Amino acid sequence: MEFDLIDIIRERTAQSRGDVVLGIADDAALLKPPAGQQLVACTDTLVGGVHFPRGTAPEEIGWKSLAVNLSDLAAMGATPAWAMLALTLPQADKRFVEAFADGFAQLARKHALALIGGDTTQGPLSITVSAFGFVPESRALLRSGARVGDAVFVTGTLGDAAAALRLIRDSGLGTRDSTNEQARSELMARLNRPEPRIAAGLSLRDVASACIDVSDGLLADLGHVCEASGMGAIVEADTLPLSSAMLALFDANERRVLALSGGDDYELCFTASVGRADRIAADFARLGFGAARIGRIVAEPGVRVRDANGNTVEPPRRGWQHFAP
Amino acid sequence: MEFDLIDIIRERTAQSRGDVVLGIADDAALLKPPAGQQLVACTDTLVGGVHFPRGTAPEEIGWKSLAVNLSDLAAMGATPAWAMLALTLPQADKRFVEAFADGFAQLARKHALALIGGDTTQGPLSITVSAFGFVPESRALLRSGARVGDAVFVTGTLGDAAAALRLIRDSGLGTRDSTNEQARSELMARLNRPEPRIAAGLSLRDVASACIDVSDGLLADLGHVCEASGMGAIVEADTLPLSSAMLALFDANERRVLALSGGDDYELCFTASVGRADRIAADFARLGFGAARIGRIVAEPGVRVRDANGNTVEPPRRGWQHFAP
Repeated sequence: MEFDLIDIIRERTAQSRGDVVLGIADDAALLKPPAGQQLVACTDTLVGGVHFPRGTAPEEIGWKSLAVNLSDLAAMGATPAWAMLALTLPQADKRFVEAFADGFAQLARKHALALIGGDTTQGPLSITVSAFGFVPESRALLRSGARVGDAVFVTGTLGDAAAALRLIRDSGLGTRDSTNEQARSELMARLNRPEPRIAAGLSLRDVASACIDVSDGLLADLGHVCEASGMGAIVEADTLPLSSAMLALFDANERRVLALSGGDDYELCFTASVGRADRIAADFARLGFGAARIGRIVAEPGVRVRDANGNTVEPPRRGWQHFAP
Repeated sequence: MEFDLIDIIRERTAQSRGDVVLGIADDAALLKPPAGQQLVACTDTLVGGVHFPRGTAPEEIGWKSLAVNLSDLAAMGATPAWAMLALTLPQADKRFVEAFADGFAQLARKHALALIGGDTTQGPLSITVSAFGFVPESRALLRSGARVGDAVFVTGTLGDAAAALRLIRDSGLGTRDSTNEQARSELMARLNRPEPRIAAGLSLRDVASACIDVSDGLLADLGHVCEASGMGAIVEADTLPLSSAMLALFDANERRVLALSGGDDYELCFTASVGRADRIAADFARLGFGAARIGRIVAEPGVRVRDANGNTVEPPRRGWQHFAP
C-alpha cells in the first residue's frame, strides 16, 4: 500500500455523504446503511489488454472501471452510494493515478457516489471495483421474473462498443482517416466512457418483470434472463436499435453481428408485460432515453433471432466469453 | 465471466445467512444489514509473486486472500458477515479454482461468512477480496484513539511470516533439511494460513483506545496508529513476543529485525490505558490467546525502539512497502 497514491485518489474523488461514518482512513470503512432499504453489492475486474485495449487513456480506464459496476447496480434498479477501488499497477505512476482518479471521480460525482476504501498494489495493470447501492425492500429488478408473452426491450443502442473495438483492431490505435471522424469518435466514447443506465433502472422498478445489463452481448445476457426465468426469447433482428455512427460505418451484416453479440454496451435489457409495453416507450422518451422493443419471451428455452420475413438468423457467436475454450 | 468457475466457487463456499436476500445469482447481491449496526467494509488484493511466493498452494492462496481482509475487520472490532471475490487467472484452471475455493471456504466457515458475489477474469494471477462485517454504533476500534501514557500491546507472536519468507528465499521452495522441520512448518503455516484475530478484536471493543492489524510490519503499522492519533510510541525491543519456531531457527539479531519490520503477521497491535493493562493480559490469556505489552504511547511523534538498557535500536527498514522507491 502506497500512501501517496491513496492520497491522490482520495483527494480527487472526495465526496461527502451522511451515510459514510468513516471513509478512507483506517483498516476499513464504517457505513450506516439507510433503514428500510436493501443493500445492493457487486464487483467487477478490468484487466489491461483484456477488458480495455492497451493504450486506453488512464482517465477512461478510471471512468470505465466504475461504470461497469454502476451498470450492475442499474440493472438491479439500485441507487448508487459507495465504491471501493483495488488498483494494481506495474509501477507507482503518479500521473497515471491522477488521470485515473479524475476519470473515476467524474462518473462518481454524477451519482453522488463516495469512494470509501481501496488498496493499491504492484503488479500487472488490473482494476477491481466494488460498488454498493440501495433499493427499497422487494423492489429490486431481478433476472428471474420474465414470463411468457412479456415484451423484451433494450435501452439506447447496441453494438457500438464492439464496433469501436473493431475499428481499433482494424486500423491500430491512434490512426485516423478524416472521413467519418465524428462517427468514429462517437463509437470510441461508447467503448471508453459508457454511461450506466441508473435513471432507467430506477424508472423500471415497478415496470420491468426482469432486467440485466448488456455487458457480455445481447444474446448472452438475454440468455441469462431466460435461464434464470426458465424461459426462452425471440429477438426480431430488424428492430435492434443502432446508432447513426454504426449506420455510417458498418454494413447491414456487420451491424447485426455487432448488435447481437458485441459486449461492453452497458445498456439495460429488460422484459415487461405486453400490457405495459406501449407506455414504456413513451415514458422512456419523456425521461430522455430510448427503449426499443426488440422481441418477446416464449416458453421454449434458448434465444432465437428472426429477420423481418420470419426466417431464423444464425447468430455468429454467443457474446464475450473470457476463458472461452 | 466463466459460469463453470463461478459455479465451482459457489458450491464449495455455500453458506446460508438470514441477511443474504440474494447471493451469487444476478447482476448484484441483495443484502439486509442488521438494524442498529454499522457496516464495516474493506478490500485487499493479493498479486501472485508479490503477496505470496510463486508456487504457493492454491488452497493457501484461497485462505490467505480472505484472511487478510478478515484481519482488517478484526482490527475494527467487527463481526464478519459477507465477502466478494474477484479472481483473475491466466487460464480457466478448474483444479486450481477447486483448491482455491476449498481454502477460502475453510476460513469462511469458521466465521459463518457468506460469499455473496464475485467476478472471474483472465489475466495474471491476482485476487481481490472485499469483506464486510458489523459493529454496534460507536464501538468500532479506530487507529486514532491512542493517548499519551497508553500501553501498546500486540497479540500472538511477531515476524513469523517474514521468517518463513526468509526460509523460502534462502533455500528455494520445496527444499528441506530434516533438522527443525517442525519449526519450519510452523512458520510456513503462519505465512500461508494466517488466522485473523476476530475474537481478539471483539474482546477489545470496550478496552482498546486504538487498534490496527500488523500487515505491513509492526513499526509501520504502529506508525499508522501514531500518525492517526497525533502521537508517538516507544517499543521495548526485548518484550517483542516471539514464537518457539522463530527462537529455534534465527539468531537474536535476525529475530529482532523480523519482528519489528516483517509484514504479513496479521496480529492486532492495540493501545489501552495503563490502568487496564494488567487486566488485559489476564483476560486475553483466559480467552486463549496472548497479548504482550511491548511499549507505550508518548507525545513525541515517531516510533522509537529501545533495548533493555534503554539504548535506542536503529530499525533496519520500515516495513513492507509496495512501490517503495
